[in-house]
Amino acid sequence: MQEKLILKKDLKEKKEWINIYLDRFLPRKDEYPKDIHKALRHTLFAGGKKLRPYLAIQTYLLFKDDIETIKPVAASLETLHTYTLIHDDLPEIDNDEIRRGKKACHVLYGPDLALMAGDSLLCYSFQILSTCDLPAPLKLKLIKEMAECAGDQGLIAGQYVDIISETKTVPKKTLTFIHHNKTAKLLLLAIRFGALVAKASKDDLARLEKYGEKMGLAFQIIDDILDIEGSAGTLGKSIGKDIEEGKATFPSIYGLYESKEMARKLIDDALKILDYYGEKAETLKTLTEFIYTRKF
Amino acid sequence: MQEKLILKKDLKEKKEWINIYLDRFLPRKDEYPKDIHKALRHTLFAGGKKLRPYLAIQTYLLFKDDIETIKPVAASLETLHTYTLIHDDLPEIDNDEIRRGKKACHVLYGPDLALMAGDSLLCYSFQILSTCDLPAPLKLKLIKEMAECAGDQGLIAGQYVDIISETKTVPKKTLTFIHHNKTAKLLLLAIRFGALVAKASKDDLARLEKYGEKMGLAFQIIDDILDIEGSAGTLGKSIGKDIEEGKATFPSIYGLYESKEMARKLIDDALKILDYYGEKAETLKTLTEFIYTRKF
Repeated sequence: MQEKLILKKDLKEKKEWINIYLDRFLPRKDEYPKDIHKALRHTLFAGGKKLRPYLAIQTYLLFKDDIETIKPVAASLETLHTYTLIHDDLPEIDNDEIRRGKKACHVLYGPDLALMAGDSLLCYSFQILSTCDLPAPLKLKLIKEMAECAGDQGLIAGQYVDIISETKTVPKKTLTFIHHNKTAKLLLLAIRFGALVAKASKDDLARLEKYGEKMGLAFQIIDDILDIEGSAGTLGKSIGKDIEEGKATFPSIYGLYESKEMARKLIDDALKILDYYGEKAETLKTLTEFIYTRKF
Repeated sequence: MQEKLILKKDLKEKKEWINIYLDRFLPRKDEYPKDIHKALRHTLFAGGKKLRPYLAIQTYLLFKDDIETIKPVAASLETLHTYTLIHDDLPEIDNDEIRRGKKACHVLYGPDLALMAGDSLLCYSFQILSTCDLPAPLKLKLIKEMAECAGDQGLIAGQYVDIISETKTVPKKTLTFIHHNKTAKLLLLAIRFGALVAKASKDDLARLEKYGEKMGLAFQIIDDILDIEGSAGTLGKSIGKDIEEGKATFPSIYGLYESKEMARKLIDDALKILDYYGEKAETLKTLTEFIYTRKF
């Protein structure tokens, strides 16, 4: 219980750091032309767990003690993630009206501005990485990996197959494809970024990737479960949408009970991998456990 | 007349080079999940002048003799430009149904897929730059400049102010803001990219920027004029849309005659700047003159 409180406090602290960093990096909301800056700030600062930046930070802290170096890299993951949320919420994709407990960007600013706000955030991800204070070859590696992760061989492939699989009975491998690309890949990228910036060894990278794959898949299974069992108020987004739209989810294919078992098994495996890092991995372990027990 | 024929042949040749480069870089259209790759290839290879890559190539050739080095950089400008076209054509923005003489991406593949195809192309621009064979600091400089040019302090700012200015009488400085950000900035970036990759001196960069600003503004004025005087068949896009939507354009503010005079003056000034490069600038000069006389 105490670990959970410590995690909550630490998450909040790091979230504020990322918010402050982004607030300073982005144009002020009173800068001309105002509304576009306001629109992208709206969803970016609307709340959210800031899980991706936090994963990068905590992975980095397995190897290093400072935090300044990883901050911009962590922030770039959040602008990327928020861009995907804004575009996914648009009427032509998921048509979601609530995001992070507030009105979705397009509801407040219109779909045209939301589209452009998403585009801008995507650009900022690369702008932040290209200008931060890291060695040039490392920055290029991060940019390359981010572009590959975000494009039509990563996040977009996952999102696209998710859409075309609606109202269809899809094979298990299609479901895995969707979840791996749509969700796990970016969580994995956050972990890779943390390890790469910390100059982790190849062995460490391979180990943490295994951890990331298990944790990432568990995260999405829990997401599917929360869409059935969760509360919209706590989640900060609409629930019941998956069933309504006939989405391919773990509960729809494996059933609720087996999905929970699978998530538990993945979390246990992920935790076991982290044992290697001893005490250094305590926060990351609590976070991994939280991914299973989370209500939002 | 002969110069025009040489330009046409050269444009065609370089366009094919860029297309071959992009064809090899992008996922094949039969790769899973197929339709997303097909959608982005549709508008990318639908035709178009490939003016931005060509400007980068011709600027580069003012200083160097090879072409291999500039090819990926030129290609990244085309993926970026095509992303803006696909997103701008979407129903929530300009709702244009014809692009490059073919059906717009969203008409053929639906607005969801078109949105994602645009997002993917934007990612590819950065992916191409981060992986091409140039010194790391130069690549980072290009990535930074591209992100700044594309985001909400560049192209998107221009596009946004363009939208909110519809059906309004805007001051001349707003019109200049729109045209500078929406169009001239990316043409200027192409020229800067050509010069930067060729390791041009600061003086050359400053000179070519002046050239680019004048040429870029002239390009957009001619674009405004073609929306009134042009033919949809030749242009490969809808005409008369500016007046229909009450867009802020040069003809609407300065009148058709004065707009033409302004474009001519800008082109003459741009040509004068190129005199400095003597024979080396012949193709760039013909291209600049073509920007004034073009019908598409």
